[in-house]
Amino acid sequence: MSVTVPKGFRAAGVAAGLKASGGLDVALVVNDGPDATAAGVFTANRVKAAPVLWSQQVLRAGIVRAVVLNAGGANACTGAQGFQDTHATAELAAARLTAGGGGRMMIGPADVAVCSTGLIGERLPMPKLRAGLEAAVRGLTRHGGPAAAEAILTTDTHAKTTVVARQGWSVGGMAKGAGMLAPSLATMLCVLTTDAVADSSTLDAALREATAVTFDRVDSDGCQSTNDTVLLLASGASGISATEEELAEAVTAACQDLARQLLADAEGSTKDIAIEVRAAVTESDAVEVGRAVARNNLVKTALFGADPNWGRILAAVGTTTAHFEPDDIGVSINGVWVCRAGAAAEDRAKVDLSGRAVHIVIDLGAGAESATVWTNDLSVAYVHENSAYST
Amino acid sequence: MSVTVPKGFRAAGVAAGLKASGGLDVALVVNDGPDATAAGVFTANRVKAAPVLWSQQVLRAGIVRAVVLNAGGANACTGAQGFQDTHATAELAAARLTAGGGGRMMIGPADVAVCSTGLIGERLPMPKLRAGLEAAVRGLTRHGGPAAAEAILTTDTHAKTTVVARQGWSVGGMAKGAGMLAPSLATMLCVLTTDAVADSSTLDAALREATAVTFDRVDSDGCQSTNDTVLLLASGASGISATEEELAEAVTAACQDLARQLLADAEGSTKDIAIEVRAAVTESDAVEVGRAVARNNLVKTALFGADPNWGRILAAVGTTTAHFEPDDIGVSINGVWVCRAGAAAEDRAKVDLSGRAVHIVIDLGAGAESATVWTNDLSVAYVHENSAYST
Repeated sequence: MSVTVPKGFRAAGVAAGLKASGGLDVALVVNDGPDATAAGVFTANRVKAAPVLWSQQVLRAGIVRAVVLNAGGANACTGAQGFQDTHATAELAAARLTAGGGGRMMIGPADVAVCSTGLIGERLPMPKLRAGLEAAVRGLTRHGGPAAAEAILTTDTHAKTTVVARQGWSVGGMAKGAGMLAPSLATMLCVLTTDAVADSSTLDAALREATAVTFDRVDSDGCQSTNDTVLLLASGASGISATEEELAEAVTAACQDLARQLLADAEGSTKDIAIEVRAAVTESDAVEVGRAVARNNLVKTALFGADPNWGRILAAVGTTTAHFEPDDIGVSINGVWVCRAGAAAEDRAKVDLSGRAVHIVIDLGAGAESATVWTNDLSVAYVHENSAYST
Repeated sequence: MSVTVPKGFRAAGVAAGLKASGGLDVALVVNDGPDATAAGVFTANRVKAAPVLWSQQVLRAGIVRAVVLNAGGANACTGAQGFQDTHATAELAAARLTAGGGGRMMIGPADVAVCSTGLIGERLPMPKLRAGLEAAVRGLTRHGGPAAAEAILTTDTHAKTTVVARQGWSVGGMAKGAGMLAPSLATMLCVLTTDAVADSSTLDAALREATAVTFDRVDSDGCQSTNDTVLLLASGASGISATEEELAEAVTAACQDLARQLLADAEGSTKDIAIEVRAAVTESDAVEVGRAVARNNLVKTALFGADPNWGRILAAVGTTTAHFEPDDIGVSINGVWVCRAGAAAEDRAKVDLSGRAVHIVIDLGAGAESATVWTNDLSVAYVHENSAYST
């Protein structure tokens, strides 16, 4: 499973002592080629962690030969020193991979992307990270995907991996966290690999198309991390060229699968909530409405309490700039149309909210476009988990 | 105290059986004149409750002779029937006040504002409300302010009232809820009275100036009610004319006092948090940053846990469009500058978060403007209270 299923990739996950638990905390993914094309999307937050600033520069050239990832520290809000730490990490990876590649590799730090996740505002313990990275280089194998997926977890309770097989090529992936455009503190990191042949602009288009309808529509708690990174690396080792359309389809499937796993493991959540907005004038109207409902603490607490309080949904819709008339809105919760024409309709007592899956349909009665945004409820456990993260 | 301190006003609060608890739930405030000038501000939510739609029409003429308020039902998302219920309430009040005014009053339904608060999506039990309103008319007194303030409460644990005395005239007020632009489900209702002489355009300017820097900057949970209403009624009974400046000053003081009381009693809160944004290029930049931090669930849960997690504050600032460079930002929490130049500074362990008051200063290092936004923490009790509101 994971990033080492496509041909041409090796990976490793080691325990470097960054996590207090002693668990795996440094991951390395290496692209052995023959190609090393790549694309990346990054957090929209203007306060970006050092590894994001670094990796954005790396991706400008469209070439990535290795990705170093660590849990146990975000290296965000760490100033010039933090950026130097990331730079040093990339340099060490490049040097060791070149030396240990048996003539297979000649790579520079500018070919190495870096991702970090953990507490903001503290420098990484570089001696530990260096030792961990050296161990990871020594431990690289064609079966290292699961260990790498394990090493990037923070508050996640288990690893998230995916494989999407197509004719003669595949996409593998690993992820941690809870969203992309607006993830929880659990920064979202994701590395996708493929052995298809594709240039970096094709990868970039496919990746943006995929994340726009998957990770970008997962909105766990409305907060936006400083470290979010999604990378797509292509080795070309299958020898088979994939079109942008083929790639976009497979990468979307991989991102969809990982996004569902992230939602199901979101901090303290008890509900997976799909908010489907129908009959909008534009798709962006539908996304705006879905996101407003997904971020509404009163809706989220009501669903935690298994309370089909549709009035709170209408109140959330009312805060948007989407085209609609309040008297045209319909709301269905798990199949029961509790609101039609902006007022009470079927008996709310019919709504069954005992399970984990919640499907809300909001019919704006205004147009023909639709979109779905996924979120979680706001639970007592969420508050507990996030009230004691750094102390 | 409350709305009956200024001369020319009577009020009452009665138990009509709208609240399951049997407590006071219908309030009436009557302006006996000689003037009946008035101004109002209402929720920005596009899904507006019937009483908001009604009262907005009433206020267009700048005349209000009575305000009927009820807890126990918001009369929001109730369609045309809900609007008829509000209309009928105003008609009944006008008829009974004209009949019982002893020749003092001749008022029509268009002179009667109506406010409701409670669960969204259900019609009001009109027979109970009618009987309660008739009892309230009979019970009107010059000392009815405290009972009226009691009758508008929902999840509030106690009544909020204020009096601001000036030379020969005063402002009285009552409020319930937790904010204005973005209050919690506890809809914010506020009635302010004054015996100063002022025309309705002066009242309107003074009220907008006051709410812009008080209720509009209280952001308890980022949610926006369908029912929020703030009314200012002037009787002119003091015979003393107040300028717009004098009125704005006194009304701001009254709103400030009520806003503090609302924050201190916000649902499930354990912290009163002032977010002061300094060195912004514009005041609106400062407000945008303050509001983004106030609405960030990760910041709010950290403060509930007494955790000075300043990295989450920077991550929230990074989601705004304000002018700043990440490396210029400083953050102080209760006097300790835990972040300077975008990175760790003083030891976070020095921050004392044991008390209820939290003062966060965010220095954007970009300009000369500032603003303060007030909020609460996100607690386990908030989740409990809001997960079981309608069931």
